[in-house]
This record gives sequence, C-alpha cells and structure tokens, in this order.
Amino acid sequence: MHKDFDINSLKRICIVGAGLLGGSIGLALRAAGFVGTRVGLGRRAISLEKALACEAVDEVTLEPAEGVRGADLVVLCTPIGHFEGLLDAMRAHLEPGALVTDIASTKVQVVRLCERKLPRTVQFVGSHPMAGSEKTGVEFARADLFELALCIVTPTPRTAESAVVRVRRFWETLGAYTMTLSPGKHDRLLARVSHLPHALATALVTMSLTEDAIDLAGPGFADVTRLASGDPAMWVDILRTNRRGVLSAIDRLTAELQRLRRRLERDDAAGLHKWLAGAKAARDAWISSRYRKRILPS
Amino acid sequence: MHKDFDINSLKRICIVGAGLLGGSIGLALRAAGFVGTRVGLGRRAISLEKALACEAVDEVTLEPAEGVRGADLVVLCTPIGHFEGLLDAMRAHLEPGALVTDIASTKVQVVRLCERKLPRTVQFVGSHPMAGSEKTGVEFARADLFELALCIVTPTPRTAESAVVRVRRFWETLGAYTMTLSPGKHDRLLARVSHLPHALATALVTMSLTEDAIDLAGPGFADVTRLASGDPAMWVDILRTNRRGVLSAIDRLTAELQRLRRRLERDDAAGLHKWLAGAKAARDAWISSRYRKRILPS
Repeated sequence: MHKDFDINSLKRICIVGAGLLGGSIGLALRAAGFVGTRVGLGRRAISLEKALACEAVDEVTLEPAEGVRGADLVVLCTPIGHFEGLLDAMRAHLEPGALVTDIASTKVQVVRLCERKLPRTVQFVGSHPMAGSEKTGVEFARADLFELALCIVTPTPRTAESAVVRVRRFWETLGAYTMTLSPGKHDRLLARVSHLPHALATALVTMSLTEDAIDLAGPGFADVTRLASGDPAMWVDILRTNRRGVLSAIDRLTAELQRLRRRLERDDAAGLHKWLAGAKAARDAWISSRYRKRILPS
Repeated sequence: MHKDFDINSLKRICIVGAGLLGGSIGLALRAAGFVGTRVGLGRRAISLEKALACEAVDEVTLEPAEGVRGADLVVLCTPIGHFEGLLDAMRAHLEPGALVTDIASTKVQVVRLCERKLPRTVQFVGSHPMAGSEKTGVEFARADLFELALCIVTPTPRTAESAVVRVRRFWETLGAYTMTLSPGKHDRLLARVSHLPHALATALVTMSLTEDAIDLAGPGFADVTRLASGDPAMWVDILRTNRRGVLSAIDRLTAELQRLRRRLERDDAAGLHKWLAGAKAARDAWISSRYRKRILPS
C-alpha cells in the first residue's frame, strides 16, 4: 500500500508540541523504521525533556526557527490557540518544498489560518487523526496509537494533490487508514459524531448533580458520560472553533428530542419502538462493520 | 450484615420470568447457599426449559396459580406489560404472608398497579436492581450479576417496614447493596441518570445516519451510544411508564443546551471552560467514589 512512499525519503521531521499525540507520532515513526531526525519543538523545557527521556524525539528546541530549519515535514500538534503565534514565528524559516500538516480536531478555522499564514513555497494540508485518550502528556504516548485509527485529511481547492498523497502515506505508515473530506464537511459531520456527544456528556453530568441523582448512576451512565472526563482546555478550543457545526447539531438534536416528546405525549408505543429499534439496528451494524474495517483496512 | 436474615428461612421462591435477570436471581440464590426450591414461572415452555437446563431454577410451570402456591417469596421479572395479567392470574393463589417484589426499571406505575392488584394478605415492596446487560435471555444469566450492584427498594406509605427489611436483606444476600427511595423520587432521578441517557444515545445514532456521519465515528461515539443497543421492547416500556420523568428530564436538558448555545454565541471561553471543568471534576469524583464504594459496600 505504501510502495510509492518511503518514510526515509524524509530526513528531518519537526513535531511541534510533544504531548500525547506528538510523542506518539515520534514513537510510531521510529517503530515504522524512520531513521532520520525527529525534532521536538515546544514551549516548555520540562515537556521537551520528558519527550527526550521517552525517546519520542531525538532533538529538542524551544526556538521555532531552529525547529523547522531543514525539516521536510512539520506536524503541528499544539493546542489550536497556539497556532497563530507559531505560524508567525516559523513561516520565514520553513524550507521551500516542506510539507506541513496538523492534527487539530476542527478544520475550517485551522486550515484557513494555516493557508493564510504559510508561504506559498511550502505545501500544507490539514489532518485529523482520530486517536487519543483522556490522558494528556508525552508519558502516555504510544507507538501504536494510530494503529487502525481513521485519519481524515482535509484538502481545499488550494491544496496540491501531491501534498494530499504524501500526507496520507505518512499517516498510513504510522498505521492509520485515511480518507479525505473538505474542511467544511469534516466539521459538520464531526459536530454530530464527536463534538455534540462531548457536550451532551457534559450536560448529563451537570444535570445529574442536583438532588445527588449521580449517586444512583450505574455503568450505563459511566459509558455515556466518559467523554466528559476529557481535557476542558482542549474542548473549549474545539467547541469555539466549530461553533457553527455545534450550533447546528444542537438544533438537530433539539428537533429529535421534540419528536420524542410528541411520541411520549401521544403514548405512541409503535413510534417509540420503531425509533429505538431503528437506532439499535444502525448501531449494531456500525459496530460490526467498524470491526470488519479494522481487520481489513481499505 | 445479614445476620438477622437467613435466606433459608424461605422454602420456596417463585421467579416469574426466566430471562437474564430472573435466571441470574436463580443462580445467585444457589450460590448464596439457598437450599429451598426455585420455581420458574413463565409464558413459553422453551424459555423455561432453557432455565432448567442452565440450572437457574429447580421446577418450572406455565400456570401462575401453580407457580405461586406455597411460595414465601415471589419476584416479578417479566416485562412491565405482562404485570397486570399476571397479577390477576396469581392474586387468589398467593400464600398469606408471602412477600412479593419486582425488578422493573420504573416504579411509580408499577408499584401503584401491584398495590392495587395484590391482596392485603401479602406484603409487597418494589425493587429495582441496577444490573443487567444488553444481552437478553437466561443463557446469559450469571450468579454474580448482582454482586456490588445497587438495588433501590421503593416503599410507599402502605408498605410494612418488615417487608422493606426482608426485601433489602434478600438483595444483599445476592451481593447487592441497597437503599430506599419513594417511587416518585426513584423515577424522577432515574429519568436523569438512565432513561434520558438512553434516549440520547438513540437520538445521537439517529442523527448520525444522515450523510453517513456515523462512518466517521470513533470509540468515543461507541461509548456514548452503547445504551442504544439495548432491547427496544424493554425501553418502550420504560419510557412509557416514566413518561413524566422523561419529559421533565428532556426539558432540563433542553435548557442546559440553550445555555451552551448562548455561551457559544457569545464566544464565552471562560464560561465554556467552567462548565466543562465542573462536569469533569464531578464525573472524576463520582468514578472514584463509585469504586471506593464498591470495594467497601456500606
């Protein structure tokens, strides 16, 4: 599958932000046979020292100019809020022809910012590897974090086709399978399957606190609210940068709940059964196709 | 903890409905040292034969009169929709002084029905053991299903205190820990931590089907929607018999989502952070206290 791309055609890869994801990219690169240099660029010496100690990177620097100099590939793994400052600091020092990508969970605003800030001499395409954990920090990084994960690559009309191909091959080398979507479609669909579910998990926990209802909660509640234990700062960024998608998903959900309300008010047993059975069938089919896909990634 | 109650003070226990829960009660009784007779009362010979084959019961019958005759304890484990017919069929045959309980997931309507239908010569108190699985059928029954599960017992002003004590001890003998709540409070709080979460899981799956958004869903979506794979017929009963609680929980959630909408529209980063961080702290505290409680049940 990767025969047209050799990870060792790259000599120097700059990982910006050495946390769980950035560190896992470093470890996965080494596991995939990358023999070049993995440079960790960060804002805090202590995190960079930890990344070195974990062998997630080979060199570290606090200087954006130094980090990107000579790099064939730059992967932005920092919180979205740091992107603008970083892009300003690194843009003049990027190698002509360098490939730049990111791992942010929302794409419209991030891709627009990167396209505006990066020089035309480099190739940029956004990525969203759907892998992670509630845990944060390079100490939880894993070489197999991207194994069979889906990575969505989000080209725009400005993106060079060769950048799309190379970035997809990069993620596939780390074990992911990839697909492309426009940034707009990415954000609209992810609002429904990721961002709204996160907000709902938070809303359910908040609602359960009055009258100590949470004391009656069982394992079902633990599952349905697991996302609410995610990193608040990261989720503030996600909700703010996909505000349109999340607002539209809230409206869809509100309409869905109003339909449920009417079925309950009419005591419509057949309608309730059809709704519950339809969702069960769809979810059961998704779960089994998901595992099939993971056994035989396309 | 159970020194004032010996499960073998009961000679004959009638389990009505030999599915996952009824069968698990039978297996747990044997594991707890019950030496009397476990009678399985059901509507389909095939299910009863399976219950016998699993050794979940000692005797089976399709006749309500025969099932409850001589029983010190009757546990109703059938779908809520069968309660009325069963109560009519068994009421004239219950032993004076017999204890009757049930395992239904909603309590106001069920307890009202049982109190209306059962003769004053028997003692009734409702129960809701919070244990189960997406799986149904006696073949999935387990002797340890109630181990460290919470069982809520729901007395009313009509309930004899001795019935509450005996039913609590019964569930504690099977490994559960117990608490009491009025049927009304039970239904109001369970709507928030169980019935609405189930409806939301269903709504999220339904919403994810347009534009094949579900194809982008990951492990977070699998968790948040796990409840949607539950048995539709059981959930129709739960939603219909706790209509008031569920409608009020929908209204609370809608208000919570409107607050989120306003925070997003104002781009209120501090408000979003406070909301997300508050829910994370509450959930993390709940998860750890839950496990503490389970290690040292009260």
